[in-house]
This record gives sequence, C-alpha cells and structure tokens, in this order.
Amino acid sequence: MCQSNAYLIKANGSEELVMEDVSLITPGEKGEIALTGLFGDQLTLNAELRELDLLKHRIVLAETAT
Amino acid sequence: MCQSNAYLIKANGSEELVMEDVSLITPGEKGEIALTGLFGDQLTLNAELRELDLLKHRIVLAETAT
Repeated sequence: MCQSNAYLIKANGSEELVMEDVSLITPGEKGEIALTGLFGDQLTLNAELRELDLLKHRIVLAETAT
Repeated sequence: MCQSNAYLIKANGSEELVMEDVSLITPGEKGEIALTGLFGDQLTLNAELRELDLLKHRIVLAETAT
C-alpha cells in the first residue's frame, strides 16, 4: 500500500489530518489542490503543497487564503 | 517500495524521466521543486507539480520559465 495521509497546516499553525489513503494529488489552476482517496472520495482544499514524503507516507499541505 | 518516478513535461511537450525512486518532494519558494531520491541524491527543477499518482507511482512535473 503506497497511499499516504494528507495533513493540512491551518492558518493558526495547527495541523489536521484531512484525508487518509490519498491515491492522487492534482493541483488546480486557482491555487487549490484536489485529493482523491483510494475509494474515489474527493476533497478540494485551498492549499499549497509543502512537502510530500513518500517514505513516511505523509502529504503536508498549508492552507492558503481563499 | 513506495517511491515514485518523476517525469518532466518540457516546454516543447515532450516527457522525460528525470528521477527514479523519488522519496521526497519539496516545492521551493521561487517556483522550483526539489526532488530527493531514495539514496539521498537531489535534483532541483524549475517546474510545477501537475499530478501525483500514488497508485501508478508517477510524479508529473511541468517545466516552467526560469
């Protein structure tokens, strides 16, 4: 299993697990990031990619202003 | 093994395999993307993330103007 968990760093600095078992990450043209889960569930966030660690299975996103 | 291969779409539309077994992806502040391989090798590209498919182990980057 190579899916990763996605964490969102919020504007106040807190970190929240927003999706487990992410299989696809697609940045959009308006600064959003779409996450697709293993079972096809989707989540779109106003965020930028901070780090993607494939060894730790960890996707770190940072919230951006809408 | 969860590492992925990184492909770069060049300005002329061609696609090139730029690194195998990428373990860490870190976007920089100036629009660059740093890739770190399984053995610590590093590569920094002027590129943006297009898609990251964790099931196909495929990182797709698109070259940007320097």
